[in-house]
Amino acid sequence: MAGSDPAAAGRLARISQLCADYARAIDDDRLEEWPEFFAEECLYKITSADNYRRRLEAGLVYADSRGMLRDRVTALRRANIYERQTYRHLVGLPAVLGEADGAVRAETPFLVVRIMRSGAMDLFATGRYIDAVVEEAGALRFRERIVVCDSGRVDTLLALPL
Amino acid sequence: MAGSDPAAAGRLARISQLCADYARAIDDDRLEEWPEFFAEECLYKITSADNYRRRLEAGLVYADSRGMLRDRVTALRRANIYERQTYRHLVGLPAVLGEADGAVRAETPFLVVRIMRSGAMDLFATGRYIDAVVEEAGALRFRERIVVCDSGRVDTLLALPL
Amino acid sequence: MAGSDPAAAGRLARISQLCADYARAIDDDRLEEWPEFFAEECLYKITSADNYRRRLEAGLVYADSRGMLRDRVTALRRANIYERQTYRHLVGLPAVLGEADGAVRAETPFLVVRIMRSGAMDLFATGRYIDAVVEEAGALRFRERIVVCDSGRVDTLLALPL
Repeated sequence: MAGSDPAAAGRLARISQLCADYARAIDDDRLEEWPEFFAEECLYKITSADNYRRRLEAGLVYADSRGMLRDRVTALRRANIYERQTYRHLVGLPAVLGEADGAVRAETPFLVVRIMRSGAMDLFATGRYIDAVVEEAGALRFRERIVVCDSGRVDTLLALPL
Repeated sequence: MAGSDPAAAGRLARISQLCADYARAIDDDRLEEWPEFFAEECLYKITSADNYRRRLEAGLVYADSRGMLRDRVTALRRANIYERQTYRHLVGLPAVLGEADGAVRAETPFLVVRIMRSGAMDLFATGRYIDAVVEEAGALRFRERIVVCDSGRVDTLLALPL
Repeated sequence: MAGSDPAAAGRLARISQLCADYARAIDDDRLEEWPEFFAEECLYKITSADNYRRRLEAGLVYADSRGMLRDRVTALRRANIYERQTYRHLVGLPAVLGEADGAVRAETPFLVVRIMRSGAMDLFATGRYIDAVVEEAGALRFRERIVVCDSGRVDTLLALPL
């Protein structure tokens, strides 16, 4: 069996690492680092597979700048919601779909378990990240990260980033 | 620490990608592409860990040609079952176990969450794929894919491929 | 996009493989191989995120030599607990955090599903492995593996290694 293309393998490895680092920052409660995974002008959206398929703009969460993401973290810290639950992300292998407008397009499956302060665990969300990734000063950042949840029934207390 | 063997790493990367692409085709409801992941003469079987250990042939699903897999997709589309549920696969790192009869043997752990149309999610199946992978015209295909579910209690409505 | 650093990529690949092999040995019920993943002088501990953060030493399971790990396996085999349940580990991408005292430090997220003999499945544990990995005679081994469970509510029947 022939090997894989080294350039493609290197790119995939970096995007895998980016997705893993992103998840780890949230799961470790380092929310202040979360906006730094995005480009200054960015799009972050949480939506459902149904809404995404029907191109409905309404999402559960919407932000179109790094500043909005920072505001969201500030609000979360004030609400102290972060003390009541944590997440554990499991992230699959990204599928690199090509390049457009100077960004690499990738899709990555995920599963998130929520752990309540009481110790109760539940399967909180599954879905895929649909990303446009750019390189800025040697680091990869999300120009777009659309979080497409498989289920349309998302907890209305949705608080932490996915 | 020394690095890994580049040839082995390249092979592992390609098999990882194959497993991820396979899961994504199912999760994206591109079922018509599912038979194309198999060689023309192939074996696809879903069984339980108990039955697999006891070498019982009876499985939940059995197909020994790509044509049978295509028939299965046609039946699923007619039954419209695919509208009522979707899957989300999370796939672990394959263990490459060696080569035999021109195929690479690999085992890969998986977890599948089922998402019902209502939005309800449940942990549907866990287990491992036991695969024989061959290269045909530059693409990897499954000559064998035995889906060994950890639990013997599998939903009798089992419909989508695992 | 530039590729990843080949040396770092090789090291990450080997640690990923180690984590996958470790999980597979447990999930395949090859418990006798489990102590061999550790250095002779080692630390294995299962604790909760809360206890870990507060540096509380009390853990659910504690062993500080390979011999203690072997004793544990012997006890498990005598108790026949292994016949009543199996695990399925899903392991994420390790984050390699650097080197100290001749060992590589890495953190790896995990999720474990428990499958009872009856066929019932449940989400048993999530968390992260905090590892110190060393190379001995060409093989990677854990000098330390701290299993930090996200939930403090761990089944009191906790039996198999995580």
